[in-house]
Amino acid sequence: MSSDLAGFDPIRFMEERRNRINEHLKIYFDEIYSEVKDREMEKIVDLIRNYTIRGGKRVRPILVASGYQMFGGKSEDIYGAAISIEISQSFFLIHDDIMDRSDLRRGFKSFHRELEDIIGNVRDREHIAESLAIVGGDLAVDYSFDAIMRAKIEDQRKIKAIRELVDIIKITGYGEGLDVYSGTGYRLSTSDLIRLHLRKTAKYTIEGPLLMGARIAGEDGPLWDLRVYGSLVGIAFQLHDDVIGLFGTEKEIGKPPKSDVNEGKQTLLMIEAMRRSNEKEREFIWKTLTSGNVSDHDFEKLRRIVEDTGSLDYSRWLINRFIEKGKEKLSRVQGDPEVKKFLMWFADYLVSRKN
Amino acid sequence: MSSDLAGFDPIRFMEERRNRINEHLKIYFDEIYSEVKDREMEKIVDLIRNYTIRGGKRVRPILVASGYQMFGGKSEDIYGAAISIEISQSFFLIHDDIMDRSDLRRGFKSFHRELEDIIGNVRDREHIAESLAIVGGDLAVDYSFDAIMRAKIEDQRKIKAIRELVDIIKITGYGEGLDVYSGTGYRLSTSDLIRLHLRKTAKYTIEGPLLMGARIAGEDGPLWDLRVYGSLVGIAFQLHDDVIGLFGTEKEIGKPPKSDVNEGKQTLLMIEAMRRSNEKEREFIWKTLTSGNVSDHDFEKLRRIVEDTGSLDYSRWLINRFIEKGKEKLSRVQGDPEVKKFLMWFADYLVSRKN
Repeated sequence: MSSDLAGFDPIRFMEERRNRINEHLKIYFDEIYSEVKDREMEKIVDLIRNYTIRGGKRVRPILVASGYQMFGGKSEDIYGAAISIEISQSFFLIHDDIMDRSDLRRGFKSFHRELEDIIGNVRDREHIAESLAIVGGDLAVDYSFDAIMRAKIEDQRKIKAIRELVDIIKITGYGEGLDVYSGTGYRLSTSDLIRLHLRKTAKYTIEGPLLMGARIAGEDGPLWDLRVYGSLVGIAFQLHDDVIGLFGTEKEIGKPPKSDVNEGKQTLLMIEAMRRSNEKEREFIWKTLTSGNVSDHDFEKLRRIVEDTGSLDYSRWLINRFIEKGKEKLSRVQGDPEVKKFLMWFADYLVSRKN
Repeated sequence: MSSDLAGFDPIRFMEERRNRINEHLKIYFDEIYSEVKDREMEKIVDLIRNYTIRGGKRVRPILVASGYQMFGGKSEDIYGAAISIEISQSFFLIHDDIMDRSDLRRGFKSFHRELEDIIGNVRDREHIAESLAIVGGDLAVDYSFDAIMRAKIEDQRKIKAIRELVDIIKITGYGEGLDVYSGTGYRLSTSDLIRLHLRKTAKYTIEGPLLMGARIAGEDGPLWDLRVYGSLVGIAFQLHDDVIGLFGTEKEIGKPPKSDVNEGKQTLLMIEAMRRSNEKEREFIWKTLTSGNVSDHDFEKLRRIVEDTGSLDYSRWLINRFIEKGKEKLSRVQGDPEVKKFLMWFADYLVSRKN
């Protein structure tokens, strides 16, 4: 893949945009923080600020900027709007971690756990921290709309950006719902899972941000090829994440290696392993997934089944196929050549990352 | 007050608008429901629809329409945007009931309790229902923005409506946060409480909706008098609600009479009763409020102290003062005489309602 790049430096491309995004996030949150009139709420708003600013690779707002520049957008003001999608990401993660009962996020405590430290040793501490985290997420989703409203772009472009943001949050919400449902004990099929990844990951990670940027640039066409690129690469990204979740180290995953299994996550690896194994193994996998607390021994056994049944290889094959198909779609999109080069590279990058 | 009305029928004024609002809510939710592509999510979206459609007096969207008509707005299309504030209300209530652990709302089961019935007897049922309710609230806040985007009003007016909606959700979020904080055991002062009511109730119930309507009508001035009317009447509404919460019947309150006390709600009645009573009574009140489960005997004793210390009379006096001051402010606003008549009547109506 590097031969196509011909002097183009994708890491620098990302870095330049990431710096602008970080500046704009800082400006936005300083403004919001200064407007808070309640001493008690300053701590919460400050936590939302830190949570957003300290974490994340800014993949999503980089894609907003890329979608914009792909279709001729030149203004620096795109970054004021692009941060909206990074703030939405905080909203998703804060609520997601309450639902998943996750204690960690990006190597730090999750939002509701961090709130426990802030409120100190009060009666009903856990519930109060979770309640404040629900409020924190609700504020973050509001801020994501607010950021677009404050961006220095024309009203017509704001309308388009908001239309896309509304769509992103709705589809991701449907994905979240499907995800929670899958915890009620019904077994996902592979096609259920792909649908779930499309809604819960691909939309707000790749397709939505690219589309938001394109719309702000004034591109009003259906953009099917770009959207399919976003969907396929987004699904591949999630499938890759699930592979790391089972076979990566604690550092690569950002939380204890057994977390996905203990959360009962029905990944493609698990679904395929159950489909491909005998009844005894199938029962073992399902029992382990629903146990909530897997032993070291069973965790190793589970990984071995996933490898021996060819489920790991199948996952990797599918990831690769989605990436190649996505790039093929992208090659048909008429747009800025440098941004196209970046997005070609980016598809491979997303599924080569260890964390 | 009726002498001022001179043939004007405020009940009919409300009824006409309520009918339009109900029609538009139905249209909006039918559209949204038909767009859902996941069978599993249809149940959740259907529940959000029923929850919104079956409940509520539509006070907030009636005020959006009133604010619009006050400043010369004539189009029927206002109702497409006005429903956004009713959908936000569902968002607030759904999340609020999770935080307050309320089982009932408007005489029905609360959203998360209703979800328990829908998901049936699964493992970890309560947590899964609460998680789906978090998602349900998140979808509702998204729908409230979506409703404005789909309204048949010009883009310029949508921008103004969204700016106001962003502000409403932010301020109400700060109010929610303050409310949760007040459950950590720190005692609110009367001024803390007024600040809380301003944020958590007055903004999204009265001031915000009126302002949204005015903005959509194209009124761009500071509108101080109208805003102060909204703030004062909104606080009075909440204070009145708290009086009913302590002295009303189960039917008037919509939930068991002891609910507010069991939730440890620091109302003006409680704060003033503590301020006005001797140390022994003060300790009794605080102990009762933090007990989580008050006996019939202690509940009666609590009500007697609130009456004997003059706290009930003080609350009623303050409610009245806020209403009178609010009407005085309103009288200075230049606007449609019929709508002004309605808003004058409405201020009194809000604090005379039994439920």
